[in-house]
Amino acid sequence: MRKKINYNYAFVFYDVNEKRVQKVFKICKKYLSHFQNSVFRGEITPSKLMKLKLELQKVIVDEEDFVCIIKLMNDDVFGEEFIGKKDVETGESLFL
Amino acid sequence: MRKKINYNYAFVFYDVNEKRVQKVFKICKKYLSHFQNSVFRGEITPSKLMKLKLELQKVIVDEEDFVCIIKLMNDDVFGEEFIGKKDVETGESLFL
Repeated sequence: MRKKINYNYAFVFYDVNEKRVQKVFKICKKYLSHFQNSVFRGEITPSKLMKLKLELQKVIVDEEDFVCIIKLMNDDVFGEEFIGKKDVETGESLFL
Repeated sequence: MRKKINYNYAFVFYDVNEKRVQKVFKICKKYLSHFQNSVFRGEITPSKLMKLKLELQKVIVDEEDFVCIIKLMNDDVFGEEFIGKKDVETGESLFL
């Protein structure tokens, strides 16, 4: 059994029907920062992550849409590298 | 100074010009599994990650394209939740 981890950082990426993209975007924007295309990221408490999930579930049509939430303890547990244009808001120093 | 971490798992997502999408897709496919849209993921050794990066850098046009590599120690350091259609290959048990 995986020990209970307290996640406080998340990446959300989605592949949803054109009709629902705006709604999903607006919901994610309330909780996380828009990073790229259909990718959001940022610090988020477990309770807020729960709220984000519940709001998304109300909008998503299971057969057509797909949302993936990657949860991490904090932004120390992952490294990050970028290639190409750097006009994204990440707050991380870019070292590529 | 952040201590040197040995990364063995990665997510790659990209936003590249239509003309280069196929090339970038093929390069990523050599090293990682296609997960969704423009997102790849999987276990990868540091040396292979370096090769992936170098190959991508040869193809990417900095002013137009953007690739983000999220590196993790392994797939134990993150949690995962999905909403919607489940036809993606992740190997992780889906618990939503």
